[in-house]
Amino acid sequence: MEKLTLVKVGGKIVEEPATLEALLHDFKQIAGYKVLVHGGGRLATDLSERLGIQTQMVDGRRITDAETIKVVTMVYAGLVNKTIVARLQAMHVNAMGLCGADFNLIRSRKRPVKDIDYGFVGDVEEVQPDVLADLIDQNIVPVVAPITHDGHGLLLNTNADTIAGEVAKALATRFEVQLIFCFEKKGVLSDPDDEDSVIKTLNPAEYEQYKSEGIIQGGMIPKLDNAFNALHCGVREVVITQASELLRSSGTRISL
Amino acid sequence: MEKLTLVKVGGKIVEEPATLEALLHDFKQIAGYKVLVHGGGRLATDLSERLGIQTQMVDGRRITDAETIKVVTMVYAGLVNKTIVARLQAMHVNAMGLCGADFNLIRSRKRPVKDIDYGFVGDVEEVQPDVLADLIDQNIVPVVAPITHDGHGLLLNTNADTIAGEVAKALATRFEVQLIFCFEKKGVLSDPDDEDSVIKTLNPAEYEQYKSEGIIQGGMIPKLDNAFNALHCGVREVVITQASELLRSSGTRISL
Repeated sequence: MEKLTLVKVGGKIVEEPATLEALLHDFKQIAGYKVLVHGGGRLATDLSERLGIQTQMVDGRRITDAETIKVVTMVYAGLVNKTIVARLQAMHVNAMGLCGADFNLIRSRKRPVKDIDYGFVGDVEEVQPDVLADLIDQNIVPVVAPITHDGHGLLLNTNADTIAGEVAKALATRFEVQLIFCFEKKGVLSDPDDEDSVIKTLNPAEYEQYKSEGIIQGGMIPKLDNAFNALHCGVREVVITQASELLRSSGTRISL
Repeated sequence: MEKLTLVKVGGKIVEEPATLEALLHDFKQIAGYKVLVHGGGRLATDLSERLGIQTQMVDGRRITDAETIKVVTMVYAGLVNKTIVARLQAMHVNAMGLCGADFNLIRSRKRPVKDIDYGFVGDVEEVQPDVLADLIDQNIVPVVAPITHDGHGLLLNTNADTIAGEVAKALATRFEVQLIFCFEKKGVLSDPDDEDSVIKTLNPAEYEQYKSEGIIQGGMIPKLDNAFNALHCGVREVVITQASELLRSSGTRISL
């Protein structure tokens, strides 16, 4: 199988034109087949504020009401996605932008209301990778925005890390996939106050050990659960690293 | 060659969810290969107003400043494009949305400043239809937003009628293309005050005659010049009709 690198970027990297440009320049250097999945960082929040739409957050998650799904569709699938595509095209990378609704790539289900109504948020149900894989075979570089659809006409907001993991898994039947999460820190840290305490490698037993000792906690846990889930579903390797280190073999390498 | 129908919609049809839904329902019924090109109507102007960005128009054309190109990219390539895709997917039409930057479909040139600086407006230079035609061969239905790129990283605002004509021409080497412009009126009228005075057919000689008599004038002239140009470049037929008449053989049929 041919190798494919799937890179997920979000947060400040996407917000700031100079850091985005540097990231895309590094991304271009990655040899072979590749896919970029992006978030939108604070750009959607900024637009909401300018439009007088209040952004409600619960446990760090955005509540996506009817106005907010329009905003995130505009910002993620419109402005951020097409800006990245145009910049990559200028670097002679034959990029194409898409979201989960396009050729029914990612069908999701509107999250059921339990204690919290998250609104127009979609949990991934099915990824159909055939058209995407054919495009990749033609040396096209897909750039995926974190918007999905429910198959009944609704657009839904879906976590970009989840999209990266699900697309990586779906492509693992056709390619040998390495999944790289670009992150603010240099990797998974054993001491949150020491930027140089990067855990170099992580397997399931080590992960359980670090969790039981409280060394790995909080927001890293869903990220790492997502990573191990991808590995169990055929992805070859997951790397968590700083965006600026994309081309170096640094960061935390996660494997079974 | 296989038949392909390229439909261009804009204006009020795109602005109002109910009329858009009706149009898409009719579009679904069109047999064989098809492509949809859409504008954004007043939706971009509305968003600009909410953001406090003044929309400058000169001779009915929008001046696209640095803020406005962001707005039109969000509205056309984001909200309108993905809403159409999700609605078509719900009707089991395997739609995919894209703009001119995606796989370098439409490269344009920022309009040179003469008397007027139109800002980030692009005049089409080249359409590369190969990837698009391959997708169409796989029964994918492209939905094209009127945003192009200059190949150097700039996104540019391009007239949706022009995009429809240029894409139709580029696909004419691979398909027998019928180009349908959906319009507010029932077709080209011989009496602007009489909705039923539709000119049924128009060839180049008749067009010249109507122009010399002042029967065809104003905004219809660039539309029809565009139509004849498409025919001269291999498009089989151009139809100008009302959106609600899409499936009937009404409106004005233009051929050489």
